[in-house]
Amino acid sequence: MLSFEKAQEFYRKVRSQSVALASPLSAEDCCVQPAEEASPTKWNLAHTTWFFETFLLERWEKPFHPFDVNFRVLFNSYYNAVGEKHPRPQRGMLTRPSLDQVLHYRRNVDQRLLNLPERVWKDPEFHNLLELGLNHEQQHQELLLTDQKLLFSYNPLAPAYHEVDLSRTPSRTQGAALSWKSFPEGMVHLGHTGEGFAFDNETPQHRVFVNAYQLASRLTTNAEYAQFVDQGGYQDPQYWLAEGWDWCQKSKRTQPLYWRKQDGKWYEFTLWGLGELDPVRPVVHVGYFEADAFARWAHARLPTEAEWENAAQSVPLTGHFADSGEYHPRPAPEGELVQMLGDAWEWTSSSYSPYPGYQAAPGAVGEYNGKFMVNQYVLRGGSCATPEGHIRKTYRNFFPTWACWQFSGIRLAREL
Amino acid sequence: MLSFEKAQEFYRKVRSQSVALASPLSAEDCCVQPAEEASPTKWNLAHTTWFFETFLLERWEKPFHPFDVNFRVLFNSYYNAVGEKHPRPQRGMLTRPSLDQVLHYRRNVDQRLLNLPERVWKDPEFHNLLELGLNHEQQHQELLLTDQKLLFSYNPLAPAYHEVDLSRTPSRTQGAALSWKSFPEGMVHLGHTGEGFAFDNETPQHRVFVNAYQLASRLTTNAEYAQFVDQGGYQDPQYWLAEGWDWCQKSKRTQPLYWRKQDGKWYEFTLWGLGELDPVRPVVHVGYFEADAFARWAHARLPTEAEWENAAQSVPLTGHFADSGEYHPRPAPEGELVQMLGDAWEWTSSSYSPYPGYQAAPGAVGEYNGKFMVNQYVLRGGSCATPEGHIRKTYRNFFPTWACWQFSGIRLAREL
Amino acid sequence: MLSFEKAQEFYRKVRSQSVALASPLSAEDCCVQPAEEASPTKWNLAHTTWFFETFLLERWEKPFHPFDVNFRVLFNSYYNAVGEKHPRPQRGMLTRPSLDQVLHYRRNVDQRLLNLPERVWKDPEFHNLLELGLNHEQQHQELLLTDQKLLFSYNPLAPAYHEVDLSRTPSRTQGAALSWKSFPEGMVHLGHTGEGFAFDNETPQHRVFVNAYQLASRLTTNAEYAQFVDQGGYQDPQYWLAEGWDWCQKSKRTQPLYWRKQDGKWYEFTLWGLGELDPVRPVVHVGYFEADAFARWAHARLPTEAEWENAAQSVPLTGHFADSGEYHPRPAPEGELVQMLGDAWEWTSSSYSPYPGYQAAPGAVGEYNGKFMVNQYVLRGGSCATPEGHIRKTYRNFFPTWACWQFSGIRLAREL
Amino acid sequence: MLSFEKAQEFYRKVRSQSVALASPLSAEDCCVQPAEEASPTKWNLAHTTWFFETFLLERWEKPFHPFDVNFRVLFNSYYNAVGEKHPRPQRGMLTRPSLDQVLHYRRNVDQRLLNLPERVWKDPEFHNLLELGLNHEQQHQELLLTDQKLLFSYNPLAPAYHEVDLSRTPSRTQGAALSWKSFPEGMVHLGHTGEGFAFDNETPQHRVFVNAYQLASRLTTNAEYAQFVDQGGYQDPQYWLAEGWDWCQKSKRTQPLYWRKQDGKWYEFTLWGLGELDPVRPVVHVGYFEADAFARWAHARLPTEAEWENAAQSVPLTGHFADSGEYHPRPAPEGELVQMLGDAWEWTSSSYSPYPGYQAAPGAVGEYNGKFMVNQYVLRGGSCATPEGHIRKTYRNFFPTWACWQFSGIRLAREL
Repeated sequence: MLSFEKAQEFYRKVRSQSVALASPLSAEDCCVQPAEEASPTKWNLAHTTWFFETFLLERWEKPFHPFDVNFRVLFNSYYNAVGEKHPRPQRGMLTRPSLDQVLHYRRNVDQRLLNLPERVWKDPEFHNLLELGLNHEQQHQELLLTDQKLLFSYNPLAPAYHEVDLSRTPSRTQGAALSWKSFPEGMVHLGHTGEGFAFDNETPQHRVFVNAYQLASRLTTNAEYAQFVDQGGYQDPQYWLAEGWDWCQKSKRTQPLYWRKQDGKWYEFTLWGLGELDPVRPVVHVGYFEADAFARWAHARLPTEAEWENAAQSVPLTGHFADSGEYHPRPAPEGELVQMLGDAWEWTSSSYSPYPGYQAAPGAVGEYNGKFMVNQYVLRGGSCATPEGHIRKTYRNFFPTWACWQFSGIRLAREL
Repeated sequence: MLSFEKAQEFYRKVRSQSVALASPLSAEDCCVQPAEEASPTKWNLAHTTWFFETFLLERWEKPFHPFDVNFRVLFNSYYNAVGEKHPRPQRGMLTRPSLDQVLHYRRNVDQRLLNLPERVWKDPEFHNLLELGLNHEQQHQELLLTDQKLLFSYNPLAPAYHEVDLSRTPSRTQGAALSWKSFPEGMVHLGHTGEGFAFDNETPQHRVFVNAYQLASRLTTNAEYAQFVDQGGYQDPQYWLAEGWDWCQKSKRTQPLYWRKQDGKWYEFTLWGLGELDPVRPVVHVGYFEADAFARWAHARLPTEAEWENAAQSVPLTGHFADSGEYHPRPAPEGELVQMLGDAWEWTSSSYSPYPGYQAAPGAVGEYNGKFMVNQYVLRGGSCATPEGHIRKTYRNFFPTWACWQFSGIRLAREL
Repeated sequence: MLSFEKAQEFYRKVRSQSVALASPLSAEDCCVQPAEEASPTKWNLAHTTWFFETFLLERWEKPFHPFDVNFRVLFNSYYNAVGEKHPRPQRGMLTRPSLDQVLHYRRNVDQRLLNLPERVWKDPEFHNLLELGLNHEQQHQELLLTDQKLLFSYNPLAPAYHEVDLSRTPSRTQGAALSWKSFPEGMVHLGHTGEGFAFDNETPQHRVFVNAYQLASRLTTNAEYAQFVDQGGYQDPQYWLAEGWDWCQKSKRTQPLYWRKQDGKWYEFTLWGLGELDPVRPVVHVGYFEADAFARWAHARLPTEAEWENAAQSVPLTGHFADSGEYHPRPAPEGELVQMLGDAWEWTSSSYSPYPGYQAAPGAVGEYNGKFMVNQYVLRGGSCATPEGHIRKTYRNFFPTWACWQFSGIRLAREL
Repeated sequence: MLSFEKAQEFYRKVRSQSVALASPLSAEDCCVQPAEEASPTKWNLAHTTWFFETFLLERWEKPFHPFDVNFRVLFNSYYNAVGEKHPRPQRGMLTRPSLDQVLHYRRNVDQRLLNLPERVWKDPEFHNLLELGLNHEQQHQELLLTDQKLLFSYNPLAPAYHEVDLSRTPSRTQGAALSWKSFPEGMVHLGHTGEGFAFDNETPQHRVFVNAYQLASRLTTNAEYAQFVDQGGYQDPQYWLAEGWDWCQKSKRTQPLYWRKQDGKWYEFTLWGLGELDPVRPVVHVGYFEADAFARWAHARLPTEAEWENAAQSVPLTGHFADSGEYHPRPAPEGELVQMLGDAWEWTSSSYSPYPGYQAAPGAVGEYNGKFMVNQYVLRGGSCATPEGHIRKTYRNFFPTWACWQFSGIRLAREL
């Protein structure tokens, strides 16, 4: 449990980072919802604040004065136990409250929370919910970037979220060659143990038996994926799961979400705008179906989450994260197992399901994770849009098979 | 044909009115698209400007320098002959260009146009396209109000577009009683003759034989329509066209678009915000199916456009229009035939079809009207959101049967 | 009013004709529903029988014994006033009752009806409903053929409904050249007057003023339409109504419903099976959008129903009907105005709307026509699948713009 | 490997059983497709025959004479490698070939296959494909029953597939009480080993570590499930996965697929027709979402497939299967672990995924299983519609979460 001072510092740091992420954006940019599954930046800013007001202030502020009673409904995402919620597909209709009012709401809640007595901050229940709220907000920081990228991608002007000094970010040089790292069969421990914060879906720790396997030393690159595309991978059903093939046909997908072909050359839309596809950077924004099809084409497969977590135990908890301010993956460095953390979320072949003995938290926050454990697949390792302190080796992200708007990439696995 | 000075004055007046209409709105309000059939205010402001740049400046400015080549595609609405166009359902994705840039675009085009030599302004072709462009812009002024109203209606905060001094606008007093005015059978002339501006769909003037008929002296009121609702009108198929009944079931419509029931009382969302339903004002925002069902319930029917236009010839070209700045219909004054112009568009039973001998204009502007002449119905008379100088007795507005977001109301007709 | 004997003879003839039409079909053929808007043959056979049981036997049979109470719901098409009805899209799920049981139902109702006392048959109310029922059944005879054709068209085996002796049906010879017949402006009478049976939608007779116009001497041929197709007519938006263009894109329509291209040659699926497209026969199975686009391409337009009916008054009530047993249109004979009756229904540009003074019949049969008077267009003249005695010059058929599965064709009109 | 005689006997038995299952049905019953995911009985009869013709006769018959070249496409289900296939949603449009022709096709293929020389039958490759084909046909026998049940359920007449002598089938007596059987933690072997036929998805055998757990002694009964329904289980989101809750709302599901409430009493549609819900029989035709919600309501959970298979190793391979000819589950007998095999497929919480080291068979039959391993859940144990000889303890059935038309039921599990 963090000390009072550390907790307040952590709170200030996370909360101000959200505002910083919105700073390159206009009020218009922050208001529009690009798709039902994505949210406007303004909504992300307000909803994360709603979380603190609803789950902390409402309980520990005496007397409790909501900033605006309407916000209770407007910025509830999916907590049925908390009451009514504004329909998800209409988040982008909320031109009011304005961005300024939402920023005001943030400052108001911050002040009220930081002014709560020290003994409240030392209450373990408060502390747990505070940590949950801050980790929740970090998740929305990543979503803010990916949702905004999706929105900009629909604009023919291909606006850049920010200008990046390309000299800072290595590129278009020779990339690291792919090698395979072997892991022996055996019993492995999966999941989080008591130390530090973790989401409930990472618990309880439990034993899993895994066969011997190999993992690719690095993420799949754009060059490798482009070969799959250029050799007709999207036109040949033999590589695809049946449902993935249907998805390709219906959505007319012939390449990753943000790739564009112009005059016979591949371009990629990034948060820096539209640029030539960099062959040595990892492919990102591929869905589960695409990752699985590529793996089959490459005579390999996706790893299970047990294989991934077992391998991750051998590497340091470092990588290329959002803290670099680049928000795009970097080429792989040399090494026998690199890019496990950061750069791109790695699709696993594991369906998102409860660990043996899993119990959802009691009350409304119990709706955080458990109710999504069906028809989604686990991604591991964090990305270039994940805050560094947010990731863990036991961290389980999850998305449906069709989801492509996250920084999701591919690490291959194969039998020994 | 207007003199050079009058034409420039007309241009300035219409163009500045669009900007004035957007002035109570934030950049966020102007950016969001409430539905596929409606457009963001920013898009309305840009598209009307695109019209002048494309159809006038491109031809008469020497040399022609487009403000921004991307705008050529972004703000084309539906003119296939002009080239590519941005997909209609994605107009709300354009957070860039910003509202400020669009206002800059407007000023730029205005300046370039007003600086064209006097002889250009006196060129009849230029003059015709200018008039078309200004009438087109007036149409979008009305759409700006109704699109914005639709957007605000989706916001649980029920924002008001503007505050209205209710003392100025008569209300909740005793309304005028309904009487019936008779018209004899005979040959009537329908459509516009040569004097002044008219859209191509109002021409050519032609003869139509009409049987004797009666028209209601005024628009149907909220009180009258509420009776239909409260007596189960939306639950009884006998009043509805078969397709209208299906529409009711599918859209779960049980009352007009902007009516809300709270604690057993009817409220109405207006551009002034949410308020108690005023029984004596005209019902508005009903679709064709609703207007037709109400008429059947009232043992009457909707008028044909020939009946309407014939009757309109007997009244002065005055009424309650957008120029009042109220943007909501007023209660009917006393009189044997009132509210024919202004207050609310009146659904006719006439399908929108070409007049005998109709010829679409040559070139891209020929796509203005003709290609929509199917599966839509004619509305007549203008509304409280129509600029006064814009309306004519021969004016044909048209919308599909399900469209409710215009200020569309009901005038009953019946056989003699 | 028909005499007792003539009425019984008419009844027997129409009723046995329905059974005859089903005789080339297996029970399986009769059971399946090809689309929501089309019905299985078995359903057509049962529903027409339901009409007599419900509207005649229930009232005049003493005491009334329904054949099967379940059939009251199963075979109600759309009469809300009669009670519950089986959902339209599920008509094809009814593998029970079997075809044999439905044929038994037919014989049972026939017997009970024919056994009603002579004085009942002479009751004018009975007589009117009997005539309505028989005309209703004749409509379903045409639908039986077109619905069955639609079903067979989905079968890769392209089954033939029947074998036709092609020597009997002139073909692939030189077709009649197209000429234009002129009609002067003037007041014309539209609609049915008192003599003989007519549907309520043909009444009351009324006056319409029409401008001078010209009509094509015959129907548009396959050769003419193929030119439109082969010259890119389906790829060029300038020919299409905006909604028609959208319909083309969405439905990926590039040719008429039953045309197939094999090895660069056009084939047509007919009730005789798949055969080479006959250039001199009329094009059929085109929808309103296609008819309208073809007309624009041909620098002509579709006639109004007033223009059509006025012209029809000058020709004899003869033509190529279902009675030939061919069920496919014939090439046009020579003549200055031919094929007005029979061969193919002719799309008019007139929206289906009530005639001035129209009153729906009281009671459930009032749902027959009136409630469909919106968003549909009038077709005139009958087709090669219409029983000869069924057609009138005042007859108004109607279908939505996208409907193609009837024998619907094109007669061009133009201004003088 | 079976001897020549045993193999021929097995072939004859399975093949004749399919025809026997269709014998209570009319040609009409066999022709109609109740839903996109279900097939007409005639199609099931033809497709299973196509399998033998395509994968066996085409290779071993010299020279090979296909019965009808059109059938190659018409009755291909989903084997892309074999060539074109008729679109799945249109299987019900095939009124031709007739049922008689399909039965003729069956006899023809049977004769040709049985007449192949003994040495062909002794070829291990032939034998393997023969076994696969017969197991495939047994799967379609179960589908034939469930598809036909679905079709009949849409008929308001609620037809019975067959009459059952209810005295033969125990019912509405006191059911066995539910108890819990415990299993210790440990390493278990999952999957098929070399002996006898198995599908590729049951291989390879591998080790899985399972925690200690308990399984319910029997299937969940109708009475138990009715309590969940009657206490508002379908109206309370706390019991449901988020996607399951959405599914409930969209599909308006408030009870299992075949339950009907009449006059306050529950009825169930069965292959014997509509009857009162039998409280002691197992609930069937629940989807994954329903099974999971019920388990949560009951403070339990669904078992994993490892838990299920481990438990199954302790029971004999007997149960209530299709061979009884009842096609409806029986009440549970007394016992500490009963109904593991037969009666109802048991939903597991395991996503359908490849076993470690899984390899799809080479060639077209490799499309049999592997390409469906996503977004589906595993069911275990077979049902009252499964042929007895067809089931194994390692057998993995799989369906999407929304699928309800199989005899799928619930066995609860919980932590120790």
